[in-house]
Amino acid sequence: MYGRYTQELGVFAKEEAERLRDGGVRDVYLCSLITPGISLLLIPSLCFSVPSVCASRCQKFLISRVGEDWIFLILLGLLMALVSWVMDYAIAFCQEAQKWMYGGLDSNLLLQYIAWISYPVVLITFSAGFTQILAPQAVGSGIPEMKTILRGVVLKEYLTFKTFVAKVIGLTCALGSGMPLGKEGPFVHVASLCAALLSKFMAAVFGGIYKNELRNTEMLSAACAVGVGCCFAAPIGGVLFSIEVTSTFFAVRNYWRGFFAATFSAFIFRVLAVWNQEEETITALFKTRFRLDFPFDLQELPAFAILGIACGFGGALFVYLNRLIVECMRKQKTINKFLLRKRLVYPALVTLLISTLTFPPGFGQFMAGQLTQHESLVALFDNRTWCRQGVAEEFDYISHHHAWKHPQVNVFITLILFTVMKFWMSAVATTMPVPCGAFMPVFLIGAAFGRLVGEIMATMFPDGIHAAGSVYPIVPGGYAVVGAAALSGAVTHTVSTAVIVFELTGQISHILPVMIAVILANAVAQALQPSLYDSIIRIKKLPYLPELGMGHHEKYNIRVEDIMVRDVRYITLNSSYRDLQEMLMTGQLKTLALVESRDSMILLGSIERLQLQSLLSLQLSRQRRLEYLRQLAQDNGTHDHLPTVRFLVSTQQSGLGWGCSSRLKVSPTLTKDLTYEMSFLWIQSLEVPVSSLMQITEWEEQQLDEPVDFKNCKIDPAPFQLVEQTSLHKTHTIFSLLGLDHAYVTSMGRLVGVVSLKELRKAIEGSVTVTGVKVRPPLASFRDSGNTTNVSEVTELHKLCIRHRGLSLPREPNPPNSPPAGLHKECQV
Amino acid sequence: MYGRYTQELGVFAKEEAERLRDGGVRDVYLCSLITPGISLLLIPSLCFSVPSVCASRCQKFLISRVGEDWIFLILLGLLMALVSWVMDYAIAFCQEAQKWMYGGLDSNLLLQYIAWISYPVVLITFSAGFTQILAPQAVGSGIPEMKTILRGVVLKEYLTFKTFVAKVIGLTCALGSGMPLGKEGPFVHVASLCAALLSKFMAAVFGGIYKNELRNTEMLSAACAVGVGCCFAAPIGGVLFSIEVTSTFFAVRNYWRGFFAATFSAFIFRVLAVWNQEEETITALFKTRFRLDFPFDLQELPAFAILGIACGFGGALFVYLNRLIVECMRKQKTINKFLLRKRLVYPALVTLLISTLTFPPGFGQFMAGQLTQHESLVALFDNRTWCRQGVAEEFDYISHHHAWKHPQVNVFITLILFTVMKFWMSAVATTMPVPCGAFMPVFLIGAAFGRLVGEIMATMFPDGIHAAGSVYPIVPGGYAVVGAAALSGAVTHTVSTAVIVFELTGQISHILPVMIAVILANAVAQALQPSLYDSIIRIKKLPYLPELGMGHHEKYNIRVEDIMVRDVRYITLNSSYRDLQEMLMTGQLKTLALVESRDSMILLGSIERLQLQSLLSLQLSRQRRLEYLRQLAQDNGTHDHLPTVRFLVSTQQSGLGWGCSSRLKVSPTLTKDLTYEMSFLWIQSLEVPVSSLMQITEWEEQQLDEPVDFKNCKIDPAPFQLVEQTSLHKTHTIFSLLGLDHAYVTSMGRLVGVVSLKELRKAIEGSVTVTGVKVRPPLASFRDSGNTTNVSEVTELHKLCIRHRGLSLPREPNPPNSPPAGLHKECQV
Repeated sequence: MYGRYTQELGVFAKEEAERLRDGGVRDVYLCSLITPGISLLLIPSLCFSVPSVCASRCQKFLISRVGEDWIFLILLGLLMALVSWVMDYAIAFCQEAQKWMYGGLDSNLLLQYIAWISYPVVLITFSAGFTQILAPQAVGSGIPEMKTILRGVVLKEYLTFKTFVAKVIGLTCALGSGMPLGKEGPFVHVASLCAALLSKFMAAVFGGIYKNELRNTEMLSAACAVGVGCCFAAPIGGVLFSIEVTSTFFAVRNYWRGFFAATFSAFIFRVLAVWNQEEETITALFKTRFRLDFPFDLQELPAFAILGIACGFGGALFVYLNRLIVECMRKQKTINKFLLRKRLVYPALVTLLISTLTFPPGFGQFMAGQLTQHESLVALFDNRTWCRQGVAEEFDYISHHHAWKHPQVNVFITLILFTVMKFWMSAVATTMPVPCGAFMPVFLIGAAFGRLVGEIMATMFPDGIHAAGSVYPIVPGGYAVVGAAALSGAVTHTVSTAVIVFELTGQISHILPVMIAVILANAVAQALQPSLYDSIIRIKKLPYLPELGMGHHEKYNIRVEDIMVRDVRYITLNSSYRDLQEMLMTGQLKTLALVESRDSMILLGSIERLQLQSLLSLQLSRQRRLEYLRQLAQDNGTHDHLPTVRFLVSTQQSGLGWGCSSRLKVSPTLTKDLTYEMSFLWIQSLEVPVSSLMQITEWEEQQLDEPVDFKNCKIDPAPFQLVEQTSLHKTHTIFSLLGLDHAYVTSMGRLVGVVSLKELRKAIEGSVTVTGVKVRPPLASFRDSGNTTNVSEVTELHKLCIRHRGLSLPREPNPPNSPPAGLHKECQV
Repeated sequence: MYGRYTQELGVFAKEEAERLRDGGVRDVYLCSLITPGISLLLIPSLCFSVPSVCASRCQKFLISRVGEDWIFLILLGLLMALVSWVMDYAIAFCQEAQKWMYGGLDSNLLLQYIAWISYPVVLITFSAGFTQILAPQAVGSGIPEMKTILRGVVLKEYLTFKTFVAKVIGLTCALGSGMPLGKEGPFVHVASLCAALLSKFMAAVFGGIYKNELRNTEMLSAACAVGVGCCFAAPIGGVLFSIEVTSTFFAVRNYWRGFFAATFSAFIFRVLAVWNQEEETITALFKTRFRLDFPFDLQELPAFAILGIACGFGGALFVYLNRLIVECMRKQKTINKFLLRKRLVYPALVTLLISTLTFPPGFGQFMAGQLTQHESLVALFDNRTWCRQGVAEEFDYISHHHAWKHPQVNVFITLILFTVMKFWMSAVATTMPVPCGAFMPVFLIGAAFGRLVGEIMATMFPDGIHAAGSVYPIVPGGYAVVGAAALSGAVTHTVSTAVIVFELTGQISHILPVMIAVILANAVAQALQPSLYDSIIRIKKLPYLPELGMGHHEKYNIRVEDIMVRDVRYITLNSSYRDLQEMLMTGQLKTLALVESRDSMILLGSIERLQLQSLLSLQLSRQRRLEYLRQLAQDNGTHDHLPTVRFLVSTQQSGLGWGCSSRLKVSPTLTKDLTYEMSFLWIQSLEVPVSSLMQITEWEEQQLDEPVDFKNCKIDPAPFQLVEQTSLHKTHTIFSLLGLDHAYVTSMGRLVGVVSLKELRKAIEGSVTVTGVKVRPPLASFRDSGNTTNVSEVTELHKLCIRHRGLSLPREPNPPNSPPAGLHKECQV
């Protein structure tokens, strides 16, 4: 009876594990049902339900005929367009609600003020809290993380369903608050999340091709394009921007994927607007109506160039300011400690400050404070001149333009105040721990600055500059477009903002001014500061390989032998299991080198840590233990038969004895698997006689001294090899091209060193210390000053373990034979 | 006296060599002065003269401060804009001249006909002849060759000044003839030529950074962008198109270079038009005036999609037709032989046929035969509807529209005839051996086809489709734009034609229809045929690595060991000079593997062929020969002092004796260097006594038996290594990422095989045989059927040489130890 019960328990446990493993699929189902509003998701859920009903038939057809990628990309585009549209709808609703509240209370200024500030504070605080609790990885833009992931680094928890929910809801609240935050960066992350979850779903339903790891990376890069594309309804700009922002080397064969998905997504996004009767047909998001026949004069180009250069300086300043704020707060220990304890205080305070300043009856009246980002942009891109002869005489009061006109204050003052205030506000707001991007605020500031320059030009040349024939007045809206592209290009170090601007406005007539300004802005900004995303990568200490700077040709002179780690951890063909065990306990490397012998040091391949762990546990497996005990029982006769059998039962189910489990501290996953079996078996184990336990321990020690049998072990026979003389430049290129994590350095087939991303980064940057691959949300960096890092914890654990077991410190693997001083000498025979 | 005279001669020879070496610089000077019209090049020549005057001062400043790339890119952009503009001017002049002649003779139809046909026949024949004589490499588009060059393959003679002159003049004539040919492909080549020559020039003047090989490749890829950019005044589309067409993996860090240079170039190109008072300000090349507020209705999208799909089929058909024509003529032996003898007959005949068909009073009246490409495009992109209710009633007779209206024939018939006739005409015309591209003709055909669909739509829905409210008639011009982008995208397999079309028309309002049509056209065309450029690559048998097809997952199962060449040519550390000599004579490999010994086979590195040649000639050098003779003279006393001294003189100047020079047949470059010295020294040599010659030969044989001294030899210590188990997919990725030509296959450091591009291509394509890296102009392929290739010639030479010298055939290098059957087995200890 008892035996049967435990067997049932085992079955239950297995089913439970199965259920948990399938969680990913369920997540997607949940996602498709809950998040973006049930009503709108009837279409995709129909799409999902059809293949799942006749999956068995469709499967082969779909995969072989129609092309597996197309379906995936269409689904991805559809899903993202829906998410984007629903989110926009929700954000617009939030902002309307705030305006309604604010407008309804116009009798009492104090009440009005409270309504004006409480709304964003509540939303931002909720967003920060919700994100913090559900998935702290959802904080921030997401582009830096995607850049790292596409580089080949696995960032855990960044592509889960939890993060998706946290990001979407957090972002909606953050943007609904009306703070100067953007949706573009987070949307890249959301699209990647969508792609990752959709991949899991498709792999579960269709299997086959969808399980391919390489394919998933390709899909992720297409997803980034979709993110930008459906955010701005800008398919081409979206593809280009995502390439510039996330890739180092771009495979042209992935190009069409991005274009297809982004186009489809942008199309659906705009069709939804038509369907909702917001628009009559598919048009641009911020449609402009500049005149076509003479958009600008040749002699205006210097003004555009100056605007571009100014935007370059502005962009660099923005990145610097943003980093300064984070670093300042991190250094100030008092603030740091306080903020760590009360995580929601910082966003609440920032929101309070910003919303107070934009309060329309207060200071906000001088900076068009009551307008949302969308309204401001529409006004700034207006094709009329706001101001003639310095005074805003002919200002018409249609739509949102009245916000820019103050009875006592000049339009110029309003524009200057708007630009300056929004500049630092955006820099501060983007440091809040909520899901948010900086692209749109920067874009808006650029537009305002461009408008300012344009209005000044219009004042200076009221009849335009054109000398011959007809009068073509200057179009300040064109300057706004140029400014927006230039400033956002400068902050992100991209050229494709030019394309985004054309697609956003639906006009390409200003192509040359935009291109000139964007390129000049990029030239200035790249010379002064890293891009905003690279800056965040540095702040967050993500494991990313920096670019080789232009003109740093001394990098060609550094060789791999100068930067490699000579003390390589390796195992030899005649290592014993004890060596293996020690090796596993002393290092955290994911892969270990396999060499022929300690003398020859010829590199045979590399083995993953997990493989070695399974080799070790196989050696001490239940099967072998069982065999040994059976033999022991035969040798001893039958006098203590019962306890042995009981012990057999226990080991059969626990997998490993106690002597061994202490060793398994190094592999927590394995230990975890055992715990539930152990928990209901501990009573039995007390009945095992001590003599048997002793024998088992002895047997284990024997087993550990045997040489390792690599027969059932997966060896990577082609680990990446470099030669000592490889230049740093070449190494960098190979690492970034192939997305390597480490490479072995060999000399005539003999292992002499290893180079990992860490060494390479140090060599390129000079002496930047990076504490490993762990990624943390921005606020987590406040912890650094007080606590120790995780790496040292592991070391502590390891020391403790050694002291406990009375072992000497593990011997250092012999330093490899001193490497030859170059091939030339050896060739002298 | 005599001695001094020869010394003077030597000095003269040296100076002459110096002068020749500087030829590249002079070429650029010449190019900058002659080709694009002297008057216009005052600006760049000023730019050139300033730095050359105060080069010593400016040099450091320019290179360290301003950034070496910027100057280069500005110069390149400027130069290309000028070339493009001057060429356009010349072409327009040619076409005007033809019209003038044709118009002036309207009294006599026969005279008119002769004038109409003779003009293009003469121009095309001149173009073909000129190109054939000066530089046959200038024939054709140039994009396939640039794709190959950027892949890392060195195609000689493709980036020389001669080719530049031939391409520019040949292209101008070809386009001036009015044949359906394009300037875009050749312009990519011209821009690359410019960049290559400019690099040489800059390296000669400033040295330093401009000599970097890696940089030059980066500049070439920027130049491709400039080529497209300044041809269409489309900077963004230019960059994207050039990336799609030439790259497999694109380094994002090169992105800005292309953008900057292309923008600058497009800017100057359009400024020149303003300066020449063709335009009032900078505008698009084919500016459209579609309405902004409602460019198209949502319900028109199916029509756009159908147009895209039809264009996809059309594009595939075009590529197929083009290849069919070339292959047909190659197979027909009679035609083949005839055409080989009379090279100019084929282009003349084709031109005659095409111009006869377009003769305006003849068949040309039904297909708008009198219009140039530019005029046709302007008319096709017109924003008015040509045809209401099926009859072209309200047709206005402004500008070129009257050509499309025939009194008896419907507009539809004209459009259909135009599309069909131009389709095959373009496919035929682009096979002519003149510098020409196919992009523009295809673009035009697409526009005509789109216009046809648009006019049909306008007839079917005279009041537009839009249901609610105002009437928005259908804009057939929009269909023309979509059709142009879709067909050119289908033929070239690119998506960026969409961007080009926006920049060309100056309107982005049709972005979604264009994107949808282009993507659909690409999907269809890619499924049916390779791109036009890949098709030409196959026809010309260029050494290019094909893409791994989508979904061919069996490629993952093929391993390097299945495709590698096991019989590797190698030299060992204890090889003698004789082995070296034999190795050099038996193979054509550019690099040879250096292994430790024949038994261990441990790969130490690879040595270039040239290095080995210089090692060999160093062993038999004049210095060592001199020493030997001096010693010989000392040993023999002084009895025949005079001849020896004379011999010394001769060897001192000829470098090598006769015995040796026979061996040097393998290195033609070296022999060439010697000829001029030999020519005036042969008289002296007769005076050398026979005994000395015998001694020299003996000495040489001795020297050859010595082991090679690798001290002064440059060894590449890091040749690329793969392991046998590497999958074909991974190998392909690595080869295309790193632009490899070959990689050694090693097993535990031991050389077991080599994989070159050839094997890889064979494995990917199945069993395509390619006869090496030699590149030939299209007509040269006619030769294949009759003659033997050059490779066999070399073999013949080699056999002859061996027979002559009475040597046995060189022994095959030992096949390397049979490679282990996989690491797993070896790991079993």
